[in-house]
Amino acid sequence: MSGRPLDVLEASLEETVTIALKDGTAYVGTLSGYDQHMNVVLEAPGEAADTEALGDLTVDSVEDTTIIRGDNVVSITL
Amino acid sequence: MSGRPLDVLEASLEETVTIALKDGTAYVGTLSGYDQHMNVVLEAPGEAADTEALGDLTVDSVEDTTIIRGDNVVSITL
Amino acid sequence: MSGRPLDVLEASLEETVTIALKDGTAYVGTLSGYDQHMNVVLEAPGEAADTEALGDLTVDSVEDTTIIRGDNVVSITL
Amino acid sequence: MSGRPLDVLEASLEETVTIALKDGTAYVGTLSGYDQHMNVVLEAPGEAADTEALGDLTVDSVEDTTIIRGDNVVSITL
Amino acid sequence: MSGRPLDVLEASLEETVTIALKDGTAYVGTLSGYDQHMNVVLEAPGEAADTEALGDLTVDSVEDTTIIRGDNVVSITL
Amino acid sequence: MSGRPLDVLEASLEETVTIALKDGTAYVGTLSGYDQHMNVVLEAPGEAADTEALGDLTVDSVEDTTIIRGDNVVSITL
Amino acid sequence: MSGRPLDVLEASLEETVTIALKDGTAYVGTLSGYDQHMNVVLEAPGEAADTEALGDLTVDSVEDTTIIRGDNVVSITL
Repeated sequence: MSGRPLDVLEASLEETVTIALKDGTAYVGTLSGYDQHMNVVLEAPGEAADTEALGDLTVDSVEDTTIIRGDNVVSITL
Repeated sequence: MSGRPLDVLEASLEETVTIALKDGTAYVGTLSGYDQHMNVVLEAPGEAADTEALGDLTVDSVEDTTIIRGDNVVSITL
Repeated sequence: MSGRPLDVLEASLEETVTIALKDGTAYVGTLSGYDQHMNVVLEAPGEAADTEALGDLTVDSVEDTTIIRGDNVVSITL
Repeated sequence: MSGRPLDVLEASLEETVTIALKDGTAYVGTLSGYDQHMNVVLEAPGEAADTEALGDLTVDSVEDTTIIRGDNVVSITL
Repeated sequence: MSGRPLDVLEASLEETVTIALKDGTAYVGTLSGYDQHMNVVLEAPGEAADTEALGDLTVDSVEDTTIIRGDNVVSITL
Repeated sequence: MSGRPLDVLEASLEETVTIALKDGTAYVGTLSGYDQHMNVVLEAPGEAADTEALGDLTVDSVEDTTIIRGDNVVSITL
Repeated sequence: MSGRPLDVLEASLEETVTIALKDGTAYVGTLSGYDQHMNVVLEAPGEAADTEALGDLTVDSVEDTTIIRGDNVVSITL
């Protein structure tokens, strides 16, 4: 299963990630935690975050600690 | 998994949180409980709550003890 | 997890609760039972129930014993 | 959990019940069986069934033995 | 639980059943198998099948062996 | 449970099957594998496949090895 | 179960795959990991990727390491 999804998340802790949700929104932030359901915790990114559009999605920067429930997630881009 | 979502919830007990739901509504209240499904219990916030819009969502303040079933939750912002 | 959702339900047995469902309906009744899936049993409320609107939702009073399947529930307000 | 939903179903066997489904339909029939997923079996009601509207729903009487898969159920009214 | 849904299916093997699906279609066929998820196997009915409308649904007769995944099923009428 | 759905799939390995999906598409191909979730693997059919419409659905022939996630499946016709 | 879906994924590691999602988008990339929920990890494809339309879907090439949550997946084409 080489490079399993959760291993990739583990290796991305404290990195900036972009998360696209099923409702058509997308968020950029620093990944500070996750669990096996792909629930994630994002923090405000330390530097000016890249809120460049992700395909058709506008990307918003997270301002406060935000828990996103995993079942809303479409993709997490590193 | 550093800073797992449920650990962040545990640390946020008795704090004011904003919860965005899949139906496009959002609520602010004091987090008084939760469980492993991310079912949560909100109480009316003790002070004038910040009902500032969350992106496009209008945020309503909870007036009575309210249980929210976890599968409706998109995000919980601290 | 202080004040877990199901503990709050347990403490609300025989109390009047308002339940908002995913289909945009809401019901008020006396909580006479529940289980771990948040399936609930409502009875006609003993006194004139408060069917005041819950935000945008109109609230109907339950007339007969009604089982609501938990996966329809958005929130339960005490 | 006093008066759990499945206990209420057990006590309602051979009684006439009205079942509202997520697709906006509703059925009245005699409850002849159920299981832990709230899958139910309805039989044609023995007497003239009460197909009075349930709120906005029109209620149809079951004519033949009908199994309803539980994940379609919104509510079961006794 | 008297007359559990799966027991009713077991007793209906080799009988003609009508299955209504969540997408608004309905099929009539001979029930040749099922499992605990309510996945079912239908065969072309041996005799002229009753494709009379089921409420508002048009009912199609199955022509070849067809497996229907259980999570699509609304109801199974015997 | 006579002729369980997964037993029917097992017996259909290397046969041509038509799979209708929840999004209204349908595919014809050779069934080369499956698992207990009804995830399936289709290969390009060896002979000119029957892409005759399945009811209202247009049926496309699979060109390359394709894994279909089981929760999209409505029906599998042999 | 000959050629189970996850075995096919295992054999496709480091290969270019096209993944169609429930929201009508499709992505091409190098499969670098997966797990039992069909969560997958895609990397930017090493060579000019084939972004030829997949039926009616436009196919986008992945530019950065991307985790896709399995419950969004319709199909994975090798």
